Amino acid sequence: MNSKNKKEVQGVGELTHINAKGYAKMVDVSEKEESVREAIARGSVYMKRETLKAIAEGRIRKGDVLSVAQVGGIMGAKSTPDIIPMCHNVSIYGADIEFQADYENSKIDIEAVVKTVGVTGVEMEALTAVSVAALTIYDMCKAIDKLMVISDIHLVHKRGGKSGEFNFSGKLNEDINNTKC
Amino acid sequence: MNSKNKKEVQGVGELTHINAKGYAKMVDVSEKEESVREAIARGSVYMKRETLKAIAEGRIRKGDVLSVAQVGGIMGAKSTPDIIPMCHNVSIYGADIEFQADYENSKIDIEAVVKTVGVTGVEMEALTAVSVAALTIYDMCKAIDKLMVISDIHLVHKRGGKSGEFNFSGKLNEDINNTKC
Amino acid sequence: MNSKNKKEVQGVGELTHINAKGYAKMVDVSEKEESVREAIARGSVYMKRETLKAIAEGRIRKGDVLSVAQVGGIMGAKSTPDIIPMCHNVSIYGADIEFQADYENSKIDIEAVVKTVGVTGVEMEALTAVSVAALTIYDMCKAIDKLMVISDIHLVHKRGGKSGEFNFSGKLNEDINNTKC
Amino acid sequence: MNSKNKKEVQGVGELTHINAKGYAKMVDVSEKEESVREAIARGSVYMKRETLKAIAEGRIRKGDVLSVAQVGGIMGAKSTPDIIPMCHNVSIYGADIEFQADYENSKIDIEAVVKTVGVTGVEMEALTAVSVAALTIYDMCKAIDKLMVISDIHLVHKRGGKSGEFNFSGKLNEDINNTKC
Amino acid sequence: MNSKNKKEVQGVGELTHINAKGYAKMVDVSEKEESVREAIARGSVYMKRETLKAIAEGRIRKGDVLSVAQVGGIMGAKSTPDIIPMCHNVSIYGADIEFQADYENSKIDIEAVVKTVGVTGVEMEALTAVSVAALTIYDMCKAIDKLMVISDIHLVHKRGGKSGEFNFSGKLNEDINNTKC
Amino acid sequence: MNSKNKKEVQGVGELTHINAKGYAKMVDVSEKEESVREAIARGSVYMKRETLKAIAEGRIRKGDVLSVAQVGGIMGAKSTPDIIPMCHNVSIYGADIEFQADYENSKIDIEAVVKTVGVTGVEMEALTAVSVAALTIYDMCKAIDKLMVISDIHLVHKRGGKSGEFNFSGKLNEDINNTKC
Repeated sequence: MNSKNKKEVQGVGELTHINAKGYAKMVDVSEKEESVREAIARGSVYMKRETLKAIAEGRIRKGDVLSVAQVGGIMGAKSTPDIIPMCHNVSIYGADIEFQADYENSKIDIEAVVKTVGVTGVEMEALTAVSVAALTIYDMCKAIDKLMVISDIHLVHKRGGKSGEFNFSGKLNEDINNTKC
Repeated sequence: MNSKNKKEVQGVGELTHINAKGYAKMVDVSEKEESVREAIARGSVYMKRETLKAIAEGRIRKGDVLSVAQVGGIMGAKSTPDIIPMCHNVSIYGADIEFQADYENSKIDIEAVVKTVGVTGVEMEALTAVSVAALTIYDMCKAIDKLMVISDIHLVHKRGGKSGEFNFSGKLNEDINNTKC
Repeated sequence: MNSKNKKEVQGVGELTHINAKGYAKMVDVSEKEESVREAIARGSVYMKRETLKAIAEGRIRKGDVLSVAQVGGIMGAKSTPDIIPMCHNVSIYGADIEFQADYENSKIDIEAVVKTVGVTGVEMEALTAVSVAALTIYDMCKAIDKLMVISDIHLVHKRGGKSGEFNFSGKLNEDINNTKC
Repeated sequence: MNSKNKKEVQGVGELTHINAKGYAKMVDVSEKEESVREAIARGSVYMKRETLKAIAEGRIRKGDVLSVAQVGGIMGAKSTPDIIPMCHNVSIYGADIEFQADYENSKIDIEAVVKTVGVTGVEMEALTAVSVAALTIYDMCKAIDKLMVISDIHLVHKRGGKSGEFNFSGKLNEDINNTKC
Repeated sequence: MNSKNKKEVQGVGELTHINAKGYAKMVDVSEKEESVREAIARGSVYMKRETLKAIAEGRIRKGDVLSVAQVGGIMGAKSTPDIIPMCHNVSIYGADIEFQADYENSKIDIEAVVKTVGVTGVEMEALTAVSVAALTIYDMCKAIDKLMVISDIHLVHKRGGKSGEFNFSGKLNEDINNTKC
Repeated sequence: MNSKNKKEVQGVGELTHINAKGYAKMVDVSEKEESVREAIARGSVYMKRETLKAIAEGRIRKGDVLSVAQVGGIMGAKSTPDIIPMCHNVSIYGADIEFQADYENSKIDIEAVVKTVGVTGVEMEALTAVSVAALTIYDMCKAIDKLMVISDIHLVHKRGGKSGEFNFSGKLNEDINNTKC
């Protein structure tokens, strides 16, 4: 396919994971150049105040909810290509997760940073790390709180690769929550 | 630990996945009775209108974003115990996912239904199915939209087991969005 | 959907893994009864005579192609629900594989027997065991023979469950090969 | 083992996955050079005409058999090193699968293309993709057809690496079928 | 094989995982009865005193080596049938791990308890939990201590099933260490 | 963090897998240089003399315990990053395992050699290979010997990377056993 046709077919709004017949495919990246790539994703688990308190106290007195979520999230980052069908299997060069209790909005904020040196980005790895960490918190607290809601999972920052740097400029639940009508 | 202390520690707000030393454990369910259990979970992927349109048209013309998300989500349900650290490995007896385009709020709604016959519920399986389906949609559309946000993942309904039926009565992002100030 | 419509839609040739919207689902088996179930599958790897000889001699002198294929196939049976998207995750109660060198047709025949006690059959487990064993033989011999062909993978026998016993009565490559024109 | 003996033992027909003691090993590729590598594999699922028709109609009206097989096959390609015991774990740079209904021979043909940049070929990934796609079709249609046969799985084309280009020149079931006696 | 021969072949010291042809198989357990089963395994990681101190202090001040080992071990228990080739895939009903610092012998002792209700024991799950926890400790401390040794992994106790209760009565490294010559 | 601070924080006895908040992380290796890396690990399974004899005879007459352990160990090496929480997912370039019967001490010695070209070492892969091979031997012999003990798992040799060559100089159970008091 020459470059003119390629442009036509892709047009605005191309779905790169779809092949010519309309089926899904794993995009060919064999001509992309290796670079250092980083992605930061965030998300939140909204919960009852008592649940948040139980986790926070647990952290000090005996607890391990966030330790387990930390491990779950990092292992989740590594298992991204096993879980997300069209996602490339990349070698992760570094992964970290941080949790922050937000008492005002009664939620735990999760931030995952993932790095690689390679031909594909690690957005999905960072987003999956956040998702699995959130699900792990849910799993460990569901006996005391079934009204938890996992929200606001989004890509915060991305650098490396041809498309360059990205910083999130969208709207989140949290913004809405904090808006006084 | 004697039974009196145990009760005290667990009391209100017990975190069942934490052992006596404060470490995480996989809860012993060997004395629970088998029953038919079902869990329904929902979540949404907020996106630009053009992205939603591209997916919907893709669905008709050639597309496969939601087919792949369907498969990803169902396989995700099966891999729940591999991903969520303290989650029991149950045999899933049935799993289905449905997608609904919500043009007003510019999002795709995802609903997963999971069933089993066993001693543990399948809430985590349903929530993981929704999460993986959402991440799969994200993966397949991220080339055209990096402002997507995965939100409102929650347990809608649960039946079976000693704790009986549960229906969600909490607050979601969607509710907030639809509130006119 | 009422039961009348349901029947209509399913009719002759129903595809049980497809939901009402046309998407795939994992069929609900929560009302099926447990029974002892067995499935036997077979398949063959056609290869150059020298390759067959190398494997057979290897077996005696030093070799391990079939031992590795045996282990690969049995582990493959266990990983069936991880590989086949809509396949239920069952507990396998027993699995065995046997190999037979067929010098006349220059191939190795593979037979897998899988047993379970449960609500779903283990046809896919037996077929996957044969497929993975065949691929393992291929992998270990591909440096000396790239003309190998994996063929004739089929269900030979199945018992247990409501649908009862099944014995294969179809036509195979082998039959065709042995037909003198 | 001295180098003279080593040569003798390996000679013609060496089985590279076997170590000096006769056990299997994962071949050392640390001195091989990286190159762009591609492998194309094909295979077929023979079935009853009604089954083929059900899949094809399903494709248009509601169906998803081939979409699921597409996803299964691509995820299968990624899980190749988890399934095939001595297979190296490579990063796949691209994967695609195409299906073709062959009404004359009452079968579906499957072709998988896999690419990588690395030190080992991706033949096994392409062959596994075809095998898993075939098994997925089988799984989704087995309720209506237990006489399906998976055949003709072979390597069609391979390029990249020291051994250079390969094109299949062997004999298939299909050739035999089409031969008029 | 008739029952007389079968007995002969198995005789004293039968290796139950070996089939009639001498290949490995997954033993058929479809006629065994379900019962509550428990297994307890133990093992130790010998290390430099400074390493032990770093872990213990880390535990109090900031540390997470044992938390991660706890999670690793429990997830390891669940992944046993994926790792151990002929091991049945059972549903684990409960799993817990405890660590004990032994300053005298400069090691960390690991004990895993695994429970199930089923037809096969969970010895391998308990032993795998201990092994993975030990490897995880090793991984997290190897930057400061490459002289660690993982030893004394053994089955302490087992109950449930036809063979009844078992309690370890063998000899360990630890016993030898503590013997004054 | 500037290099002076970095040194301070790490100090003597740094636990590299712990982040600033005391949680575990996957260490960032994106600035490390690729090199050929090799790791050799060893371990032993102590057992009753009859068990050792059964395995050895099995090897000749019909047996496959060590073949299965070989395959289990090599696949274990590949699954290291799935099992060990903070372990990087590296591409293994070569893996081999050897077994040695030690009749004097009534044990089987296991040695694994793993190679890669990359930015992280493969110590954990070699240690995991030995551990899984040992557990596999245990699994296949546990019906005839429940007093087996897995011991002496340690890193024997390591080369490649900035930290250079390492050779084990510690003390093992075996040494103790062989010491005449």
